[in-house]
Amino acid sequence: MLRTHTCGELRIEDVNKEVTLSGWVQKTRDKGSIIWVDLRDKYGITQLILEEGVSDEALLKKAAKLGREFVIQTKGTVVERLSKNDKIPTGDIEIKVSSIEVLNPSKVPPFTIENDTDGGEDLRMKYRYLDLRRETVRKKLQLRHQLMRETRAYLDGVNFIEVETPVLIKSTPEGARDFVVPSRMNPGEFYALPQSPQTFKQLLMVSGFDRYYQIVKCFRDEDLRADRQPEFTQIDCELSFVERKDVLDTFEGLVRHLFKNVKGIDIGEVPHMAYDDAMKYYGSDKPDIRFDMKFVELNDVAQGKGFQVFDSAELVVGINAKGCAEYTRKQLDALTDYVKRPQVGAKGLVYVKYNEDGTFKSSVDKFYSQEDLKAWADKMDAKPGDLLLVLSGDTDHTRKAMNELRLHMGSELGLRKKDEYKLLWVVDFPLLEWDEESQRFHAMHHPFTSPIPEDLDKLEHTPGDVKANAYDLVVNGVELGGGSIRIHDRAVQQRMFKALGFTEEEAQAQFGFLLEAFEYGAPPHGGIAFGFDRLCALFGGSDSIRDYIAFPKNNSGRDVMIDTPSVIDNAQLEELSLRLNLKD
Amino acid sequence: MLRTHTCGELRIEDVNKEVTLSGWVQKTRDKGSIIWVDLRDKYGITQLILEEGVSDEALLKKAAKLGREFVIQTKGTVVERLSKNDKIPTGDIEIKVSSIEVLNPSKVPPFTIENDTDGGEDLRMKYRYLDLRRETVRKKLQLRHQLMRETRAYLDGVNFIEVETPVLIKSTPEGARDFVVPSRMNPGEFYALPQSPQTFKQLLMVSGFDRYYQIVKCFRDEDLRADRQPEFTQIDCELSFVERKDVLDTFEGLVRHLFKNVKGIDIGEVPHMAYDDAMKYYGSDKPDIRFDMKFVELNDVAQGKGFQVFDSAELVVGINAKGCAEYTRKQLDALTDYVKRPQVGAKGLVYVKYNEDGTFKSSVDKFYSQEDLKAWADKMDAKPGDLLLVLSGDTDHTRKAMNELRLHMGSELGLRKKDEYKLLWVVDFPLLEWDEESQRFHAMHHPFTSPIPEDLDKLEHTPGDVKANAYDLVVNGVELGGGSIRIHDRAVQQRMFKALGFTEEEAQAQFGFLLEAFEYGAPPHGGIAFGFDRLCALFGGSDSIRDYIAFPKNNSGRDVMIDTPSVIDNAQLEELSLRLNLKD
Repeated sequence: MLRTHTCGELRIEDVNKEVTLSGWVQKTRDKGSIIWVDLRDKYGITQLILEEGVSDEALLKKAAKLGREFVIQTKGTVVERLSKNDKIPTGDIEIKVSSIEVLNPSKVPPFTIENDTDGGEDLRMKYRYLDLRRETVRKKLQLRHQLMRETRAYLDGVNFIEVETPVLIKSTPEGARDFVVPSRMNPGEFYALPQSPQTFKQLLMVSGFDRYYQIVKCFRDEDLRADRQPEFTQIDCELSFVERKDVLDTFEGLVRHLFKNVKGIDIGEVPHMAYDDAMKYYGSDKPDIRFDMKFVELNDVAQGKGFQVFDSAELVVGINAKGCAEYTRKQLDALTDYVKRPQVGAKGLVYVKYNEDGTFKSSVDKFYSQEDLKAWADKMDAKPGDLLLVLSGDTDHTRKAMNELRLHMGSELGLRKKDEYKLLWVVDFPLLEWDEESQRFHAMHHPFTSPIPEDLDKLEHTPGDVKANAYDLVVNGVELGGGSIRIHDRAVQQRMFKALGFTEEEAQAQFGFLLEAFEYGAPPHGGIAFGFDRLCALFGGSDSIRDYIAFPKNNSGRDVMIDTPSVIDNAQLEELSLRLNLKD
Repeated sequence: MLRTHTCGELRIEDVNKEVTLSGWVQKTRDKGSIIWVDLRDKYGITQLILEEGVSDEALLKKAAKLGREFVIQTKGTVVERLSKNDKIPTGDIEIKVSSIEVLNPSKVPPFTIENDTDGGEDLRMKYRYLDLRRETVRKKLQLRHQLMRETRAYLDGVNFIEVETPVLIKSTPEGARDFVVPSRMNPGEFYALPQSPQTFKQLLMVSGFDRYYQIVKCFRDEDLRADRQPEFTQIDCELSFVERKDVLDTFEGLVRHLFKNVKGIDIGEVPHMAYDDAMKYYGSDKPDIRFDMKFVELNDVAQGKGFQVFDSAELVVGINAKGCAEYTRKQLDALTDYVKRPQVGAKGLVYVKYNEDGTFKSSVDKFYSQEDLKAWADKMDAKPGDLLLVLSGDTDHTRKAMNELRLHMGSELGLRKKDEYKLLWVVDFPLLEWDEESQRFHAMHHPFTSPIPEDLDKLEHTPGDVKANAYDLVVNGVELGGGSIRIHDRAVQQRMFKALGFTEEEAQAQFGFLLEAFEYGAPPHGGIAFGFDRLCALFGGSDSIRDYIAFPKNNSGRDVMIDTPSVIDNAQLEELSLRLNLKD
């Protein structure tokens, strides 16, 4: 037996026990006559002690030579410590060592295995297995496991069944780019890796499975951004005989369960917000509602006073930065620089200081009287001491830029607290969006998303006005999940395809097996999918999903630890009926 | 709200309630003045009733037109049935219908949606979503979910952490053939899909995760047999600071938990059997020990009597078919035909009947006296009424053939009961096997499998005699899982590679990152993996794993429902820097 106890287990009650421990040498302190060794495993740290005159000479020598990260087995007696360490649960005791066996030595690690490591990102990615040894990193994966367990506990408890859907599926031209897998047994043909189990979960509803879920790997061959991974994990769900309210209630229940059981937080009722309102008041379909600072449209009070920039703008919109009237020239210049960044994209920023004495000082005093500015302030519910920030231009870009500015101000003013969680259902998304390039409407979600019942008859005449029976769950400005009620009525489905400009043949070629399935009694159904990596990051209080993935890939889609992707040999290509077609 | 109750929920206590149900029309019985409709969902069947004179005329007409598998919503009152049906839990009540809405009509399904369907295998595969509607099929996937839940409950309960390892990994030349995934971002390079997370779970041990598991999809591009699938699911586990006993105890605990909680069976202590004994007494490394009928080697009593066939054989071996002395000529001929089949491969069969009167009648009476045959019988612990069946030839083939014959006799005699479960650990496998083709030893499991400690020093001189610290769990003659204690000592690993004929460079090229990881303090560790699809089939009492997979592929690796693999377009190939290289 390699150990009788773990390194996190022994307490004062265990004094006098003969024990065997195994683990890693965290550090040794050699005070000449006494050597202490901190022995570490997943469960904790236990202190070993060897004393000159008490311990065997050879044993002392052995202990003195132990390096960091050596794996050892030690036997000894549990004794009470002279100076206790109340920072660790084993701090009342130490082990009087009678033997040490080095199970495996270790080279000096390329960075320190401490929560505060000296290793840079690249080095830690290459030696991910050492990075994972750090408690802070391991705890992130323990949180992931806990979230997985609680998700399953909740869904199993309300009659969901977990069903594994295939990984080797069919490539479809819709959506993002597929990863493909050449089939050796079917030369010239390919499988695709799923971007989501969408069609399979709908088929399971046709099969009468009623409530399905799966915590499942999905794949997208996209150019990677910092928070994207080529393979990612989803909580994927679908329900039959439901309307929107049923779905939202069920998954509000899931999220409530997770927050309660994992973070001890009661999220309360989750408000709903229409997509149009989210865009109008926050300039985003995933507003961060931890703070207010809503957009106020100022066209009626700001236009027609001779300020050409505003007069020619489609939208003039402001936010009220409460209590910021004291901002210095330098601070205001920095804000102007901020909004001019390409990723924000505004041409300039107008500010109005509402001074404590009731006067106004603005960057457009040439065009606007004190009364004019008072009208703005009234509209924006501003008080002396507030700072009004105003952008203008075409509606879409101005809202987008103002969203960035609002979030920036929220961060600057400390209004986006990491430990505060504000949830929101965004509903009533547009069903279709016009695509300039192909000169046709595209489905904003996918072609099986149902319109809201009251908009059905707009599908033929004003398709751009039709709202989808779709919903997103937004937490602190991050989209955590989304879904929709699906179309189950064949006639509606045909009208939808027509609105998308599909011929019947095209619809058949792309979605044939699903359409056929729908002819054999498809129940009304709907579902949702949550980004599980992002959920973990949110619960862990981190912006990066990468920390919550055991073996992540970098921004070029490489795993630098195992060095993949990599070349395969010609015989393998030959067997797959493939040849490389490299450009250079 | 589409339903107030499911179709399996209402009881006599619910009489007089106004309810809304939704589901599929299982069948309608139209008796002219009364129409009954069986409404089905996942949860059960509820009977609807409409009566002439009571129900609205239009409603009766609507009900009369309902076809099988139509999806309807109905409202009505729960009433007590006149003639109760005690076969279903809702059999005391029926619904007096006040309205019916057809949510979706259905074409006539290509086969009946009944447990006893009239649909053939091919048709049911093509319409898998309808096949899954049958209760008997759905229950198989419910069993799968239950096994998944109980597996997680047990492992979570004994401190395991589930960690997701990557699906896009690195192709290695060892083992079975990999599925590969071309990388668009890294032209000319490929990912591989994992055959198992072996290296990652070992790295997690190096990371100090201590106890890891994952229920995980794995992939093998092999020519498919009936019970193989290109993608399959494993319960994959690894533990640190363990010896063999720790691993076997832990996973005997898992299997005990599953049998107890899913089937209500106590499996008792699981015996251990050495590989050499399994081969000697059962001719198989996965013996079915539901019945005895062990091999008895007869060389000493059967050779040297002038029967050339036996005299020239490396092995003469018999089994005792208890109570079969009455077998007819025809039955014995059938057995001879059986052993001569190519998949059994014997040249002929010798039988000895031990008659009730104490005499012997054999197919080799010409060569053996009654005393000779008595000596066989004694050796085989035979009694009057028994039938001895004897094969001979070279050891390996004869054992293999006798294994088949033993299993065949076990089945014929009803000794392999579906509801009886006999578990067995097979241990002490050979570490290496000689490969004639490459004229070198190959690792029987993989090159990281540890030798048993006492055989370590044979590695250089008699490598073929070294036993591996490996183990398989066998249930009723089926290998359910297997694993080993791994090598964690760098010196032993080098000796192992040398025994395998690897140069240091070759070892580095193939397993470099793992070898490097082992230099930073790898703990002693070992693990196991269970075939989860097979586990489900075993618990479901089926021989085929395909039934327990929601959307399986056929023997050519095709999913005939979604029709994949399929061609992809040239633009996609171009993007992946690939070109087809078809032979025809």
